[in-house]
Amino acid sequence: MSRYTLKKMSGKARRGSFRTRAGTFETPIFMPVGTRGSVKGVDVERLAELGTQIMLVNTYHLWLRPGHERVKAVGGIHAFTGWRGPILSDSGGYQVFSLKSIRTLTEEGIEFRSHIDGMKQFLSPEGSINVQQNLGVSIAMALDECPASTIDYAAYEKSLEMTYRWAKRSLAARTDSEMCLFGITQGGCHKDLRTRAAEQICGLPFDGLAIGGLSVGEPKDAMYETLNYHVDQLDKERIHYLMGVGTPEDIMEAVSQGVDIFDCVMPTRSGRFGRVFVDNDPPFFNIKNSRFAEDTAPLDPTCTCVACRNYSRAYINHLFKVGEMLGPQLASIHNLTHYLSLMKRIRESIEDDTFEKLYAVIKGRWKDLDLHASGNQG
Amino acid sequence: MSRYTLKKMSGKARRGSFRTRAGTFETPIFMPVGTRGSVKGVDVERLAELGTQIMLVNTYHLWLRPGHERVKAVGGIHAFTGWRGPILSDSGGYQVFSLKSIRTLTEEGIEFRSHIDGMKQFLSPEGSINVQQNLGVSIAMALDECPASTIDYAAYEKSLEMTYRWAKRSLAARTDSEMCLFGITQGGCHKDLRTRAAEQICGLPFDGLAIGGLSVGEPKDAMYETLNYHVDQLDKERIHYLMGVGTPEDIMEAVSQGVDIFDCVMPTRSGRFGRVFVDNDPPFFNIKNSRFAEDTAPLDPTCTCVACRNYSRAYINHLFKVGEMLGPQLASIHNLTHYLSLMKRIRESIEDDTFEKLYAVIKGRWKDLDLHASGNQG
Repeated sequence: MSRYTLKKMSGKARRGSFRTRAGTFETPIFMPVGTRGSVKGVDVERLAELGTQIMLVNTYHLWLRPGHERVKAVGGIHAFTGWRGPILSDSGGYQVFSLKSIRTLTEEGIEFRSHIDGMKQFLSPEGSINVQQNLGVSIAMALDECPASTIDYAAYEKSLEMTYRWAKRSLAARTDSEMCLFGITQGGCHKDLRTRAAEQICGLPFDGLAIGGLSVGEPKDAMYETLNYHVDQLDKERIHYLMGVGTPEDIMEAVSQGVDIFDCVMPTRSGRFGRVFVDNDPPFFNIKNSRFAEDTAPLDPTCTCVACRNYSRAYINHLFKVGEMLGPQLASIHNLTHYLSLMKRIRESIEDDTFEKLYAVIKGRWKDLDLHASGNQG
Repeated sequence: MSRYTLKKMSGKARRGSFRTRAGTFETPIFMPVGTRGSVKGVDVERLAELGTQIMLVNTYHLWLRPGHERVKAVGGIHAFTGWRGPILSDSGGYQVFSLKSIRTLTEEGIEFRSHIDGMKQFLSPEGSINVQQNLGVSIAMALDECPASTIDYAAYEKSLEMTYRWAKRSLAARTDSEMCLFGITQGGCHKDLRTRAAEQICGLPFDGLAIGGLSVGEPKDAMYETLNYHVDQLDKERIHYLMGVGTPEDIMEAVSQGVDIFDCVMPTRSGRFGRVFVDNDPPFFNIKNSRFAEDTAPLDPTCTCVACRNYSRAYINHLFKVGEMLGPQLASIHNLTHYLSLMKRIRESIEDDTFEKLYAVIKGRWKDLDLHASGNQG
């Protein structure tokens, strides 16, 4: 029954695959983020070339524009975005909870105002499933509440119980049985709440299990400590998705604990601001720095992306300095290539039992560096 | 001796080729404009894929940033931009004459203030050649004065004589004999001045002959009337370049008079604002129009560019509406593909003597439409 196939383990790191109606992807894997249905600056042919197997889109953004009925009317999210492989959508909850505008949270759902036109909207577990079904995604996420890391224990517990009831409502609302549905555990860095969430969510017939509420402002150590026991609490038979994470180091740590899927805006958002990730020590630099103005090397001599195949650091430094859009495009493609290449190396290292060695190399480079950020889920 | 080879004529339309040290290109041809060394939003692999044979860069912009010495230091304009085929640079004059900031024009050259930092700079015929030689372009342009179309006859005549003296100084200043150098005729729409300019410029040993001072604000009919006699006044043995032109209709008209090379920001600039050119009647539309919001057809069903291979009008309409950079990228690539495909069809139509038929079709579509614009040279 499970759509997840575990092929090999190296320590707790898992090499597997996951089957969706839009195709199978190999894990561990990273999903480029196409918030509004477009990975910023990257067309779908480049996306495929750089190793993308599955793309993420944001339900909240597509719901407001162009609207899920419209996406459905033009043939669904695959026809719409041009990405024919698997697509995962979030539930929309994370964005709605991030809104500054007035919102009211009840057992039924969340009333909020659109950040575009101020119109009142209502997001419920059933509504979210309906939107994701209309989009026609391969994998939908159940609506959960992701509380701020600063709320007190009692409020957290209350939130967790509502998320559990919403999880059951989400499952009941699904009518498209070929659309996978993942449940999400919350509980912040409270071990007993995480443990309870794992029992609750694993007790439901979700196609996959996601860890929410991490990388939302807590210190890196707290996240790693939570991963250290929490991934073990999830079913081994199902796929494990750590939402909104993260740096290459974060990803390696999570893989070492048994996580299979990741998404994060970091490679594209960082790229748009000139930060490029490299297979070197230090593992990133900002190409806008004037020390690159006459550097004829490619961004990363080990990389084969369109940026590194054709251009020097000097040229990309120039593009950023003069505000040419090609700069952000190239840096985004390069960073995604870096991430997807790392995932490939991770898969290979699990296969030949060299994962720990690879992790030691990456960890050494990231020692004393911290890009661990809040709010990456968007 | 001539770098231009005339292969075939159909009426006055010419099918030829031109040899530079960076390769040979087939004419008639259109040059995508890479003002700051980048065709906005289009990487060099896509540029090659869409049929680009020669790219244009702007001397003024590269002179100020990153500086011609810097381009030279990193290996020249080909290594810098990643474009290995022929590259033509303008003289920088057009941009300097367009500057709003204080400038002083003397026989020696033009004093102006940089639009970036306000620093005083001086552009002379010799200085322009020096910059273009440092860039290492395949084809350089001689510095000329391009007066506003509104100045009186006496001022125009005076300007023309100075442009002639500058042309001779430009030729004398060239030390890189493998860099082609083109001279430019001015004279606006004054027939006697154009005639004099043709005699003057054709009398000098330039590698190519360019027509300046058209598409700078004069009515379309005035430009066509000027082309009608002026192209005939240019040497048949040399290549003919109409600067800063234009719409597909303008290009066809100029080809019908014997012009071989074109450049214009229209396909990319229009694309960034959502205007897309199509092989249909009407020959363009704005993809931002809401009538395309559920249109599942590609931009142009006859086109094979990356935009038309993968995406619907509905999707590209959405990208523009939500401000995703992929929208301008795709529209720019599509429009350049449209232009370069048209040039290919023009070449084929001259070869098989169907040029007039092709022109009639295009002319029919552009009847009553006018995108003829001023200031396309930049």
